[in-house]
Amino acid sequence: MAVHPIDFELQADAYSTPELRAVFDERTRIGRWLRFEAALAEAQGDLGIIPEAAAARIVDAATLERLDLEAIRAGYQTSRNSVMPVLKALRAACGPEHGEFVHHGATTQDVVDTGIVLELRDTLAIVLRDLRSVEAALLALAERHRETPMIGRSHGQQAIPITFGMKAAIWLGEIRRHIERVKRVSDDGLFGQFGGAVGTLAALGDQGPDVKRRLMAKLGLTYCLQSWHTARDNIADICAVLAMATVSQAKIANEVFELGRTEVGELREPPASPGAMSSSTMPHKRNPVLCQRIVVLASHVRGLLSVVMEAMSQQNERDPRALWSEWMAVPQIAIYAGTATAYLDQVIGGLEVFPERMLHNLNLHGDLVASEWLMFRLAGKIGKVKAQEILHQAGQTAVDQQVSLVDILRDVPEVAPVLEEHDVAVARQPELYSGMATGIVDDTVGEVRSLRAAEGAV
Amino acid sequence: MAVHPIDFELQADAYSTPELRAVFDERTRIGRWLRFEAALAEAQGDLGIIPEAAAARIVDAATLERLDLEAIRAGYQTSRNSVMPVLKALRAACGPEHGEFVHHGATTQDVVDTGIVLELRDTLAIVLRDLRSVEAALLALAERHRETPMIGRSHGQQAIPITFGMKAAIWLGEIRRHIERVKRVSDDGLFGQFGGAVGTLAALGDQGPDVKRRLMAKLGLTYCLQSWHTARDNIADICAVLAMATVSQAKIANEVFELGRTEVGELREPPASPGAMSSSTMPHKRNPVLCQRIVVLASHVRGLLSVVMEAMSQQNERDPRALWSEWMAVPQIAIYAGTATAYLDQVIGGLEVFPERMLHNLNLHGDLVASEWLMFRLAGKIGKVKAQEILHQAGQTAVDQQVSLVDILRDVPEVAPVLEEHDVAVARQPELYSGMATGIVDDTVGEVRSLRAAEGAV
Amino acid sequence: MAVHPIDFELQADAYSTPELRAVFDERTRIGRWLRFEAALAEAQGDLGIIPEAAAARIVDAATLERLDLEAIRAGYQTSRNSVMPVLKALRAACGPEHGEFVHHGATTQDVVDTGIVLELRDTLAIVLRDLRSVEAALLALAERHRETPMIGRSHGQQAIPITFGMKAAIWLGEIRRHIERVKRVSDDGLFGQFGGAVGTLAALGDQGPDVKRRLMAKLGLTYCLQSWHTARDNIADICAVLAMATVSQAKIANEVFELGRTEVGELREPPASPGAMSSSTMPHKRNPVLCQRIVVLASHVRGLLSVVMEAMSQQNERDPRALWSEWMAVPQIAIYAGTATAYLDQVIGGLEVFPERMLHNLNLHGDLVASEWLMFRLAGKIGKVKAQEILHQAGQTAVDQQVSLVDILRDVPEVAPVLEEHDVAVARQPELYSGMATGIVDDTVGEVRSLRAAEGAV
Amino acid sequence: MAVHPIDFELQADAYSTPELRAVFDERTRIGRWLRFEAALAEAQGDLGIIPEAAAARIVDAATLERLDLEAIRAGYQTSRNSVMPVLKALRAACGPEHGEFVHHGATTQDVVDTGIVLELRDTLAIVLRDLRSVEAALLALAERHRETPMIGRSHGQQAIPITFGMKAAIWLGEIRRHIERVKRVSDDGLFGQFGGAVGTLAALGDQGPDVKRRLMAKLGLTYCLQSWHTARDNIADICAVLAMATVSQAKIANEVFELGRTEVGELREPPASPGAMSSSTMPHKRNPVLCQRIVVLASHVRGLLSVVMEAMSQQNERDPRALWSEWMAVPQIAIYAGTATAYLDQVIGGLEVFPERMLHNLNLHGDLVASEWLMFRLAGKIGKVKAQEILHQAGQTAVDQQVSLVDILRDVPEVAPVLEEHDVAVARQPELYSGMATGIVDDTVGEVRSLRAAEGAV
Repeated sequence: MAVHPIDFELQADAYSTPELRAVFDERTRIGRWLRFEAALAEAQGDLGIIPEAAAARIVDAATLERLDLEAIRAGYQTSRNSVMPVLKALRAACGPEHGEFVHHGATTQDVVDTGIVLELRDTLAIVLRDLRSVEAALLALAERHRETPMIGRSHGQQAIPITFGMKAAIWLGEIRRHIERVKRVSDDGLFGQFGGAVGTLAALGDQGPDVKRRLMAKLGLTYCLQSWHTARDNIADICAVLAMATVSQAKIANEVFELGRTEVGELREPPASPGAMSSSTMPHKRNPVLCQRIVVLASHVRGLLSVVMEAMSQQNERDPRALWSEWMAVPQIAIYAGTATAYLDQVIGGLEVFPERMLHNLNLHGDLVASEWLMFRLAGKIGKVKAQEILHQAGQTAVDQQVSLVDILRDVPEVAPVLEEHDVAVARQPELYSGMATGIVDDTVGEVRSLRAAEGAV
Repeated sequence: MAVHPIDFELQADAYSTPELRAVFDERTRIGRWLRFEAALAEAQGDLGIIPEAAAARIVDAATLERLDLEAIRAGYQTSRNSVMPVLKALRAACGPEHGEFVHHGATTQDVVDTGIVLELRDTLAIVLRDLRSVEAALLALAERHRETPMIGRSHGQQAIPITFGMKAAIWLGEIRRHIERVKRVSDDGLFGQFGGAVGTLAALGDQGPDVKRRLMAKLGLTYCLQSWHTARDNIADICAVLAMATVSQAKIANEVFELGRTEVGELREPPASPGAMSSSTMPHKRNPVLCQRIVVLASHVRGLLSVVMEAMSQQNERDPRALWSEWMAVPQIAIYAGTATAYLDQVIGGLEVFPERMLHNLNLHGDLVASEWLMFRLAGKIGKVKAQEILHQAGQTAVDQQVSLVDILRDVPEVAPVLEEHDVAVARQPELYSGMATGIVDDTVGEVRSLRAAEGAV
Repeated sequence: MAVHPIDFELQADAYSTPELRAVFDERTRIGRWLRFEAALAEAQGDLGIIPEAAAARIVDAATLERLDLEAIRAGYQTSRNSVMPVLKALRAACGPEHGEFVHHGATTQDVVDTGIVLELRDTLAIVLRDLRSVEAALLALAERHRETPMIGRSHGQQAIPITFGMKAAIWLGEIRRHIERVKRVSDDGLFGQFGGAVGTLAALGDQGPDVKRRLMAKLGLTYCLQSWHTARDNIADICAVLAMATVSQAKIANEVFELGRTEVGELREPPASPGAMSSSTMPHKRNPVLCQRIVVLASHVRGLLSVVMEAMSQQNERDPRALWSEWMAVPQIAIYAGTATAYLDQVIGGLEVFPERMLHNLNLHGDLVASEWLMFRLAGKIGKVKAQEILHQAGQTAVDQQVSLVDILRDVPEVAPVLEEHDVAVARQPELYSGMATGIVDDTVGEVRSLRAAEGAV
Repeated sequence: MAVHPIDFELQADAYSTPELRAVFDERTRIGRWLRFEAALAEAQGDLGIIPEAAAARIVDAATLERLDLEAIRAGYQTSRNSVMPVLKALRAACGPEHGEFVHHGATTQDVVDTGIVLELRDTLAIVLRDLRSVEAALLALAERHRETPMIGRSHGQQAIPITFGMKAAIWLGEIRRHIERVKRVSDDGLFGQFGGAVGTLAALGDQGPDVKRRLMAKLGLTYCLQSWHTARDNIADICAVLAMATVSQAKIANEVFELGRTEVGELREPPASPGAMSSSTMPHKRNPVLCQRIVVLASHVRGLLSVVMEAMSQQNERDPRALWSEWMAVPQIAIYAGTATAYLDQVIGGLEVFPERMLHNLNLHGDLVASEWLMFRLAGKIGKVKAQEILHQAGQTAVDQQVSLVDILRDVPEVAPVLEEHDVAVARQPELYSGMATGIVDDTVGEVRSLRAAEGAV
């Protein structure tokens, strides 16, 4: 049975999705290598480098169904090469006459690197789709709660009001920036690899560039002017983009967790399924499992990103010490990043919002939350420094004695005469003191909607 | 005296440069905060939010020279706030009448965040300048050594020939991609911060957006539709770009180190100064100190990047637990990244190249280096699988008995009749077997030259 | 002015302490190198390897006051060696006759490595002292709040009661384990370094071991059977111990932060000083600045630990690429770890505890908190599975309708007859349901007290 | 098919071993949870807390063979709890009467944490066994090559001679220190977990401690005075020990790689199997695959260690955001650490050593390698500073003109008269200049042998 949680059969898909597993499944990966070999043979057949019949035969044989998997498995037990047992099986499937034209001029790393890039292309498409779904959910949330008052917090302390819509709009802005990043690396970063043993394609004489160009066209990948066997910046860039997107999503998930604490109770992730118990001993609890998992995924993605960053430093023309480390890390980053996005989509799509609790919490400190506002009002009349001093003092008293700030201020000789009834009224309804919160919602929603329209989305 | 190597006074600037220190010097940083306060006051004076006289006075007073540094120092000993002692000194310098209009509606984090962005702008400009200088040196190197033969290596083992120009061209391609990344974040990522306590600018009533727009214009920064107090993706993105550029440069530096090993001797970093001794006990040694330092800097930048990535996850409207961690990391990343670039510029600019050693090493294994080429030649005649087998066998024998591969092959019955004299000749001069190495140089140099031309560089 | 926060002159010691800075100050470090040179000269004088007069002269000259600092500074501008300019100045101070006997047979790394170990010895002593002070404060806290009821929480959700004393006791256990770890590495890990260029002390002929033994004795360090120039496991071990202790402390600090959220209000870190304002705009807020800083310090320590772990992998007999990376990281780890401990000592020593808020929060969900207990009671009568089902249902109803769980249960036909009045009474006072909480306090306090007694502490 | 390399079926066990997979297999893990439940039932049966018949039935049913795996799999699809579907299946297997006594008073985390500790116990035993096997191989290597001369290197440059035995002895010392660390955490760190929902075992009334004590005795684990649900220092400590051991081993593997470079050729890892080809295109190459894999494993272990270190910071009484992150990391660390050790055992056990190449490389620079020795000799006659200057000059000339250092020195007026023939002789045979190299071998081997004898090893 399986060892790694991605592969668990009983506790399946706590940290993966079937869709992402399908991209990185051992068979699919090998299938992608075969796709490389088929495209290579085809390109070389087109150019007359290998016989057309051989090319056709290789294309035909290059599917897992045609290969002897048992021989491949056995091959990997004696060979320490990443690809050779598969090539051997492919050659066998092509027969002695055509088999020798398999993998002509290529090196192991060409095959696996190109496979990784194809995998990343699939991953980026999935992540992009799901980020856009998260974005749609955030758009709805920002608009629905455009004016829903809640307390803003800093240093873990209540400060002054915001609206929940503004919080959602800030998330929205961040997610959109990640969407742009994912689009960028999807457009710019997907170079195939084909360089042979040291990047010179020497075995192909002067036909190297032609073969490479055709191969990349067939695979739908970009032609890189250099061989990048030990120049891994594009891979690292893609991983950094996935990692940053994941951490931002973990931030949102963690905020749902924190605002869902029993004592806060403003948000709650949707239930797994109706009636599902989440605690074996405390039946009334509902645990924010998806949010927690997203945080976990982000933590692992960050750990893996630092592996990938380290692995950028490779020696000579090819250096497996770092390369294999990257190869091991990338699929995990992809799966974790994609799973986090899928989970966040569930969380935001079904997010439970409790406006009454938000308002209740906002009023927890009574009119103290209005102290900044009162300070600015008083500052205009008695000077800011004096106002600050008085309010600091009054604030401490209000906290210590649990009384109204306005009531204390009314007893302060300098303040009483200048405190207008309008000020008092606003202090009684501090949720009005939310500045440009709704403006931020409107600006952000407007921009995102127009970007989505340009993308052809609804 | 100083504690951190960046601040060392005796062992100065082993891991920093005077130029970068000047950007991040405590005074310069505080100076930037004052610049923020001045621009803010000006903006608010323009809009009639604070008296014009106050604005003028604040602008006038907002320089370190005008402030009581001793009072600031004392202030920091009792206050735990990042900015308040400076504001207090600024207010004092403005006098009681005008001082209270300092920092109107802003929060500490607005000041420091905007300061960080201004610092990063300066850093990115320095790094961009130096990366382009490295690029120029690599252009020259690639062209000069377009055809200089050297052995390509993989798995630490000699493989088949490349040219040193091709190696330089691959570095060049990587550096150019980093230049594009640095340009991108310089263009897209430099948002100022201005949101007040929780991002709503509530204290400014409905004038928040106007003030923010004017403030950003005065500072030359982009207006962000949202407050990004806890949305740190742009900062992380910039740091990731700096980190990736640094690691790529460490890769190059490490390659110079490795190819400069006594047993290899193909490259050597330039001497510190004529006559400088690098070893106290072994006077003839010259240590690749700059290359080693670049590797060190990259290692620390990676460690700090993971701090920044982690710090992306912040709670609520402001969260110093993560924020301050980022604030501590960013200047170090900037300085280390910039210093690495400055060092690499020295190393590449003065790189000593030893073509004779390259050729000597290429010939170390005699004609074994031609085995791939012979294999392709023989494959066309006796089939690839058979050729591979024979050559594998012959190769082992050649290694074990230290004899010529061609001589062994001549004794192999299947091979002898089909081995052409031309093949033998090339096996005797394997440096000719470098495939598209020079083509890679030409393509890369051509592209980079045209990009530089478009940038207006020489 | 300074660049790194450790060296800030205005914003001094936000992330350091004067005591720790004094250990790692550039002068102190160089002073330690001189101490090494003095001890070495003395040892070699004793053994007749260098003239006794030379030894005496070196010992005499080996203080910073005697050296030409300006020459040292200038020396570092042309030399890239870590120690040579200091040696040159020392030689100059000794005069031509004796100066040449300075540093006899040693290599740069011997000096710096031994300096690092001496620094770590000082650091460990400081950290140990402060951890024991934290321990004493926790002992008091655990005892004082042995029975103070508070709600236990898991998944961010209220669960069932604990006592605050138990929480403190768990912290206490963890801190004690770290104390044991610090003691262990202080006892086992402090090897000096003396091996010469490649660890053989070849220049000393057959007197290498004798000199090394005497040198170590004079410095109070352990004799390592091998040279450990590229065997850094002891350094890494010490750093790991410091890092683990720091992260545990950050966990405690973070808990104080979280339990100090406005909505929770159970704990609060002590004020910086009476009357100190922590927020410029919201005068009533008091921010948990020390707790936040501790979390920041731990984040950086972890980042640096991964640098040190990576730097364990060094090549050949000496490898500055990794070594210098470690050398740069270690003092920062030491300072951050020590500062975090000093801060936690302040936080725990002056911690404000609010038992009424704890009780208030415990009762937030009314008798729902007793659901586990009721389940166990009912399980004995109607079976666990059935009890679990009923309680899960009743719990949901109680949450949704905001009514008492017991009241709902009284209407459940299977439950009503078996619900004893005693059960109901306990459900009304759930703080009694704290199991072995006080026992954990007693056990832990007892063990720690006896360990401290054995250590000779009060 | 499988997604993670640990679970690959075709490319099996490149980064794992069957033995380690068996420890962490999903079934084995669940089996360990059942073992916990059985031991718990037994303990509670002994104490009369649950009926003896129920205890017996639970013990009997608590094997995977007795459970409905398909129901478990389905359970995990609707439940997000880590353990509940297994408990449900166990209850079902026990029948309605006894099933309800399963998991009495425990929480999910008790089960999984204890499972992790049992897994780590198995891992530590495997690692300890293999480290001792590596140690045995190093002992043999150190003794066999006690006097085998090779050049010592620093900064990538040849310095002065060592013996290969000394290098092996330094490795030996480091491995032995890791053995001691592994033994320490095996002895001290293996606490079981049993605390119920918040660590109070409240559901067990005053019998909590008794049950816990019996449970731990049955599992062979240590009783921890506290619940450590959110106090993860022991887990982190074990992981740090495994990580440090892995990195040290990667250092050794990397040294084999570096000394096996074609241009160096002093060491080579053993072949996979006779006749195995390691390169598809260059048949004569043999790649150091195991060494490379060990380096890869260490890189991932370090990344995962930073995840575990971060996960030490947990909130409240239980905090899955960090806990699950640790749970995901620990088995990977264990498997990678164990696999690296198994590989190093193969590498060192079959290491190919080429003494002739060592000697050849040592003589590469002719008598330059003797410059330190000559300096010490001359220093005694003409003063160290003068000697150093002359030798630095002469060394540069020797390098530049490729001539003998001694020949140059003979032409230096100050030197010629004092240069003894004996000095010249030694300069001609610099391998004699290896100082205490053999002494280090003897000391280290002696100590390790006596420690092994004390452990009862052969």
